[in-house]
Parts: sequence; structure tokens; C-alpha cells
Amino acid sequence: MNKLLIVGTVAFDAIETPFGKTDKILGGAATYIGLSASFFNLQSAIVSVVGDDFPQEYLDLLTDRNIDISGIEVVKGGKTFFWSGLYHNDLNSRDTLVTELNVLADFQPKVPQDFKNADVVMLGNLHPLVQSSVLDQMETKPKLVVLDTMNFWMDCALAELLEVIKRVDVITINDEEARQLSGEYSLVKAAALIQAMGPKYVVIKKGEHGALLFHNKEVFFAPALPLEEVFDPTGAGDTFAGGFSGFITQSENVSFENMKNAIIHGSNLASFCVEKFGTERMVGLEKKEVLSRLQQFKSLTQFDIEL
Amino acid sequence: MNKLLIVGTVAFDAIETPFGKTDKILGGAATYIGLSASFFNLQSAIVSVVGDDFPQEYLDLLTDRNIDISGIEVVKGGKTFFWSGLYHNDLNSRDTLVTELNVLADFQPKVPQDFKNADVVMLGNLHPLVQSSVLDQMETKPKLVVLDTMNFWMDCALAELLEVIKRVDVITINDEEARQLSGEYSLVKAAALIQAMGPKYVVIKKGEHGALLFHNKEVFFAPALPLEEVFDPTGAGDTFAGGFSGFITQSENVSFENMKNAIIHGSNLASFCVEKFGTERMVGLEKKEVLSRLQQFKSLTQFDIEL
Repeated sequence: MNKLLIVGTVAFDAIETPFGKTDKILGGAATYIGLSASFFNLQSAIVSVVGDDFPQEYLDLLTDRNIDISGIEVVKGGKTFFWSGLYHNDLNSRDTLVTELNVLADFQPKVPQDFKNADVVMLGNLHPLVQSSVLDQMETKPKLVVLDTMNFWMDCALAELLEVIKRVDVITINDEEARQLSGEYSLVKAAALIQAMGPKYVVIKKGEHGALLFHNKEVFFAPALPLEEVFDPTGAGDTFAGGFSGFITQSENVSFENMKNAIIHGSNLASFCVEKFGTERMVGLEKKEVLSRLQQFKSLTQFDIEL
Repeated sequence: MNKLLIVGTVAFDAIETPFGKTDKILGGAATYIGLSASFFNLQSAIVSVVGDDFPQEYLDLLTDRNIDISGIEVVKGGKTFFWSGLYHNDLNSRDTLVTELNVLADFQPKVPQDFKNADVVMLGNLHPLVQSSVLDQMETKPKLVVLDTMNFWMDCALAELLEVIKRVDVITINDEEARQLSGEYSLVKAAALIQAMGPKYVVIKKGEHGALLFHNKEVFFAPALPLEEVFDPTGAGDTFAGGFSGFITQSENVSFENMKNAIIHGSNLASFCVEKFGTERMVGLEKKEVLSRLQQFKSLTQFDIEL
């Protein structure tokens, strides 16, 4: 089985949406990526850090999905990273209420020996120096390195971010972040400029408006599935990234054509994530549901104009 | 050849975008619909009204596209409908600066005898009583009636709008209008409620985010083509409606499957419209360009996951 190495936060989230609010629940980019990628046939490991306040049952939930957690450092006496956010009525925007870095502040990632030859590396949203450090530890060149990031790092660690962006094959960011990183409003122009920074493939996530994949002059678009109700968007982007990198790992095919399929798999998995609070839907999700909704994605976009 | 009857404004527009501004130029919903539909194999006629200030060259431009203009009343001493708008930097929102109804205020539409048996009727954005009056004049039941409208009529003529909505097969409106008309934020729920008002097919236009087609429990999505530069969005929705209704007229097939193709044709034509000011791009557009970009739409959305 091919190996997927995942780096990112494993954390506590407290979420408030127009539909309700949660106490501290399981969250973090690597958590969502790992759960999502677990729907593919692969071996995965998470590199992250938590405090000893982090419940064993949350770690068990990851190992139950065959995720290797030997790279998740547990800091004695440390507190786990905590994020709290409030979503506005349209669910397209949110305010961050609390960010407590805690053990994340001094995080030195350690890649498990078994995963230093991973086929695919998924660098979830974290400080760019942490992302770089993981790449430095690889003993063989991965077939594909995917990086997710956010505006926060553009604001406070741009030089380091540009350094790690140079080293990756695929970058996934949202539309506003693509505009900020490139200085271009047009996403077509933004994607071209970001390709010039290093990544040959640029994925622009537009939330409920779908995702675009750019490569040279080519572009592919995957819609988000129109849902009756979006309950909580937290983790949707990470779930997308997990589906994308998970499918690529399983299929061992890094062509543009196959990345189209990976984008669809990512969008499909993300469409479940938003249906319940936090990781709840992904934890309860069954493979047959995933396959069935993939059929809906096909019906949603496929047409038969003869050319 | 099948017949398409088009009702809507033929007008003067003055447009300002971040890229420049125009004096009074050719505009109007029926103008855009007619130009767009002229790329299909059909007979079309426009029912509208202008003043005698309306240049003959603009009328010639329509007849050059084989559009029957005998239903465009020219009011002696009257002034043509005039709209002026200013687009904001993101081009997704605009302010209306001037609306002079002029001859439109007392418009009594007269359907040319030859088109009282039209196969498809495209009711462009106009007062719902004018739209109803056109349907009243039909001598045979059209295979398909498509209605476009906007929030203005929901605000000031809702009862009349709901009456005409009952009588149509397809409604095309934008996302905000769908929310206003239904009172539901979720577009899936909004589309279900609007279907209950009469139209069996609901098309929700999302501008740069594409278009959704709803029918019973089924849904189809067509993206907008990602463009380097959107120059002027004026008329894009009408061009979409013209492509949609034009293709249906040509193909004589009102199935859901064929409507998917119609949505793609509409999106394809609309992608040209926004590339220049007003009707300029549509007037200069050649059929081979249309076909070539249709291939781009296929590449943009088609994938080959086996299920």
C-alpha cells in the first residue's frame, strides 16, 4: 500500500453557527485530512502535537481509521491547540473568537522513520517552517507534495511561506487567499502567478462555489454539491485536501487527468463534512455513502454535447 | 425551422466599470437574448418598443442576424428606455444610476401573427403584465415558455409576477432573487419552493459562480468559464437565457437531459458577452469561436471516474 504523510494540527475546536454551538470538540487540519484520506486504500500517518489534556478517545478514533499516530507528540503538562470561531448567518464568513497556540508554539515536527519514504506528503495548514522541516526530513523524494495554507501566514510569515511554496507540487488555497498571495483579482491570473512561485498545480477552493484546478493553460472545475442545509463549514477545506491527497496516494497517478478525479473525490468528501458539527459526520460516514454521492456528482456535472 | 418568440427591452445603456465607461450604447434584455439565440438554427422575433430616437443601425444589426423586428413598435416622438449603471470593483455588484422608462411606461406588446405559434417563448425581464399579455396572445401552446425576471418586480408587482410565474415552464433568476422570491437561504430549498409556484424547471444564475438547473429532485450545474478578465457583466444573464432558449428551440427537445446541454450553451455564450462593453463582443462573435469554446467547457467539467 502506498503511504500518505499528513502534517497539521490536531486540536480542540469550539464552534458556533446559526444552528447551534459546541463545547471543545475534536478538530484540527490533520484530523480532518486523516479522516477523509482514510476512505482510500493507503497507509497514513499524522505528524502533529497535542497536550496531555487531549483525550485518549480522540487518538483512538484516529487509530481506528488505521492512521499511524506515532508522529503525534504528546507534551506532558502541555495544553492542546484551541481554536474557537463564530460563523455568520450565510456561513461564508466567520470570526475567530479564540486562538490559543499552546503546545503548537514550540512544535518541532518529527516524521516517523516508516514514513520518511512516503509517496505523497500532505502539508496541512501550519507555520511554513514546520511544513519545510517535514520536507527536510524526507529520505526519498515524494511523488507529490501538496501544501495547504491560509492568509494568516501570508500576513506574518510571508518569506518563510514563499520558501516552502517553492518546494511543493500542488498548493490548495481559497479564492481570497489566492488574490492576496498573487495581488491579482482575476483567479486565472492569480493561478498563473502562483504557478510561477513553484507549484505546477494550483487548486483554488471557493467553498460553496466549488474548486478550480489550474495547470499551465488548463483548468478544471468541480462544483460543491448543492445541499439543503450546510450545518458547519469547519474542516471542509481540510476534508477536501484529505480526499484529494488520499485519492492520489491510492491511485499512484499524478497526471492532470487524474487530479481532476482527485478534485471530485475531495469535493465529494467535503460535502459530507459540512452536514454536522465538527468531525461528527466524517466519523460516522460509511464508504457506501461516499460511493453513492459520487454518482450524484457525476449527474450534477456530466452532459453529452457532441463536438 | 422552429420559432422562438422573444419579449423584452430594446434600450440604451450607459455603463461604467473599473475598466472604462460608455456613452449611450445598444442594450436591453431582448437585444442580448436575440443576439445570443441567433447562433442557433431557428427563426426568431422580438416584441418590444423603442422611441424614434433609436438609431436605424441598431435595428439593422438585429435584422442582420435574421431577427424579425416587426414586433418592435417605434413610438413617434417617444424616447427609448434608458438604463445607466456603475459596477463596483469586483464586478459582482452594481449601482443603478439612471432608469428612464420612457416609451416602456405604456408598452402594450403585440405579437406578430407569424409568431403566435412560436415553439418557444422567451419572456425577458419586463413588467409581469407585459409578459402575461404576450402569453395571452399565443394561438397555440408553446412547447416551452421560459421566464426571466428580477427583484424589482418582486418589490413592486409581486402579485402580477406570481400570476405569470404560474404559467411558465422554466424560470431563470439569480441567487439573491431566488432567495427573495422563496424566503429560503438554501438554494436547494428555494428551488423546491419556486417549483411549487408553477415552473417545473428552475434555473438559478450565480454569475461568475455558474448556474444551477433544478427539476424535481434532480440538479445540474454548469460553471462559468474562468476568464482572465471580466470586462463588463451587462447582459450576461440575458445572453445566457438567449443561448438556453435558442438551443431548446433548435433541438425541439424539452427533456431535462437536453436542458443540461442548453445550460452549457447558455453559459458558453455568456462567457463571450462579458469580454467587451455591452453587445460589442456578441456582435463581432463568430460561430467557430462559439464551438471552440464549447470544447473548453467540456474540458473544464468532464471527468472519468468509473462507478
